[in-house]
Amino acid sequence: MPRETEQTRIDALQYANWSEDVFRQMRSGGVAAVHATIVYHETFRETVGNITRWKRLFADHADLIQPGRSGDCVRRARAAGRTAIFLGAQNPSCIEDDIGLVEVLHDLGLRFMQLTYNNQSLLATGWAEEEDTGLTRMGREVVEEMNRVGMVVDMSHSGERSTLEAIAQSARPIAVTHANPSAWHPTLRNKSDRVLQALAESGGMLGFSLYPNHMAGGSDCSLTEFCEMVARTADLIGIGHLGIGSDLCQDQPDAVVRWMRNGRWTRRRDTTARFPSMPNWFHDNRDFDNLAEGLRVVGMSPDDVAAVMGGNWLDFFDRSFTRAETSAASGPRRSAAEAPRKLAGQA
Amino acid sequence: MPRETEQTRIDALQYANWSEDVFRQMRSGGVAAVHATIVYHETFRETVGNITRWKRLFADHADLIQPGRSGDCVRRARAAGRTAIFLGAQNPSCIEDDIGLVEVLHDLGLRFMQLTYNNQSLLATGWAEEEDTGLTRMGREVVEEMNRVGMVVDMSHSGERSTLEAIAQSARPIAVTHANPSAWHPTLRNKSDRVLQALAESGGMLGFSLYPNHMAGGSDCSLTEFCEMVARTADLIGIGHLGIGSDLCQDQPDAVVRWMRNGRWTRRRDTTARFPSMPNWFHDNRDFDNLAEGLRVVGMSPDDVAAVMGGNWLDFFDRSFTRAETSAASGPRRSAAEAPRKLAGQA
Repeated sequence: MPRETEQTRIDALQYANWSEDVFRQMRSGGVAAVHATIVYHETFRETVGNITRWKRLFADHADLIQPGRSGDCVRRARAAGRTAIFLGAQNPSCIEDDIGLVEVLHDLGLRFMQLTYNNQSLLATGWAEEEDTGLTRMGREVVEEMNRVGMVVDMSHSGERSTLEAIAQSARPIAVTHANPSAWHPTLRNKSDRVLQALAESGGMLGFSLYPNHMAGGSDCSLTEFCEMVARTADLIGIGHLGIGSDLCQDQPDAVVRWMRNGRWTRRRDTTARFPSMPNWFHDNRDFDNLAEGLRVVGMSPDDVAAVMGGNWLDFFDRSFTRAETSAASGPRRSAAEAPRKLAGQA
Repeated sequence: MPRETEQTRIDALQYANWSEDVFRQMRSGGVAAVHATIVYHETFRETVGNITRWKRLFADHADLIQPGRSGDCVRRARAAGRTAIFLGAQNPSCIEDDIGLVEVLHDLGLRFMQLTYNNQSLLATGWAEEEDTGLTRMGREVVEEMNRVGMVVDMSHSGERSTLEAIAQSARPIAVTHANPSAWHPTLRNKSDRVLQALAESGGMLGFSLYPNHMAGGSDCSLTEFCEMVARTADLIGIGHLGIGSDLCQDQPDAVVRWMRNGRWTRRRDTTARFPSMPNWFHDNRDFDNLAEGLRVVGMSPDDVAAVMGGNWLDFFDRSFTRAETSAASGPRRSAAEAPRKLAGQA
């Protein structure tokens, strides 16, 4: 099989019930790096608890996985036959109300943070709210701080306007780690062509999701249909902005999807939510072979397949996780201070 | 002086640097009850720390103050020659992301909570944001929960739309504990006639603020101008909805107003903010005598003066702090569940 030498496979979003089995499957699938979610609704302290759990996993499975903090970590992991695990948050709950926790969590290894998870956050609006006012006062400040320390702004679960404003506000390219074009499957969780084009124009990345709710046909979506959608998206915004963000929630009980939905924000618990069945061509990390083959079958060149399977993410990782060095890179496109301001001194 | 027998004086907002001197001034001013802020940006744990500080104050100054939890606490305090202190939050930061903390904090004595403090919160939009989308998904749920347990929704620092939606959403009357009509002094922190009329129609309360930034003329506002404004507001929405919420921040260093402004949400610290000078007719709790006299001088009847000085707040306290008994009282005007919802199952 040529993949081990030709492709650096990266999955930009998973939330498995982590185990030695899962890590062995990553190795079988030739996956050099995975962005692993550690926050859905967790507070700072709970997030640190999840980081210490990962430290134990790294110690207990040092033959299979290692911490991921930069693009070079991916190269080293691949050379050593291991998978680099990058930690990320799907909700800014982990920084609570304290912008100083952005740098603290970056120090502890966090490399991605969504500005919202479905609902309104202190920073921006999630897709599930009635209306979207874009970035808040704190949101503009936090984007600038994430730019400064080298934490990727992820807008996968955000509303349209918030996503467009994050792209415009951020001095560094942002990511939509796990979503699909809404032109293919029109749900509020997917992204419009307008968002995808703005994302690409700013140097950002889209990770295609294999979560059935995000795919036309759901669990019955075929590999060919999925890969044809990838090819169409490459025609729309360019191959260089595309990767995989499978949203694989392997081996998780349905209690986990209920936690994702309900958090602690409502007394009406949705007790019926279930994880959907994955498509029969993507059950676990070994099925990245299917994906690579599917992309080849719909006519993509080996270079383009390698780019989508991970090369583009590796390039993005190289640009994203280090502290901003120059004033040009560290300044926002629009200064948070320059943003229109209401009258001061009224509090 | 007749005030001790005729007026039950209540101040619906203070944030003093609490001390025996301040408590003695409350007694000198005949103040039977004060709503004291314990949260500007505090987390749950920090809020509990402020509650334990108040328990020590109640123990150390048991001759002057006592805990306030109901209207009857005001009557008992007055009969005993003490001031009942009601605890409240100016920011929902104290419940973090957990609706269950509403009941927990009510158990611990919290009786008021603002849905926002200047900025966007998880619940609603503050006056200082560019745009206001009203109550969030979590905001609708939390209002219903506050109605259930008997915690007053306070919208003093909220945006116009959020305030109107809170009035409409809440099954129980809400309060604007400390603000003035923007028709008198047009700032975003003050309230439009539309808000004031909706507030009154729903049985809610406005506490007039003596904080200079909220007054026409600022620190130079005269007692007569202030009292004439009170009389005009009574003509607009009825005497029964009016009280005092002085926003007295007595003996506080300027570092406190900087904490109020900056919290932990920005790395750009406003280091220049200062507390304004109070008007020369209202420096501390002894000056409630001036207020009562000023209202009389502009032509208010003794009954109306007594209503504004605290009678209306006492009536509101009687209705607001007990657990909702009946299904009619406990149900929201518009069920949070009935609120328009986007497609589910897309997460």
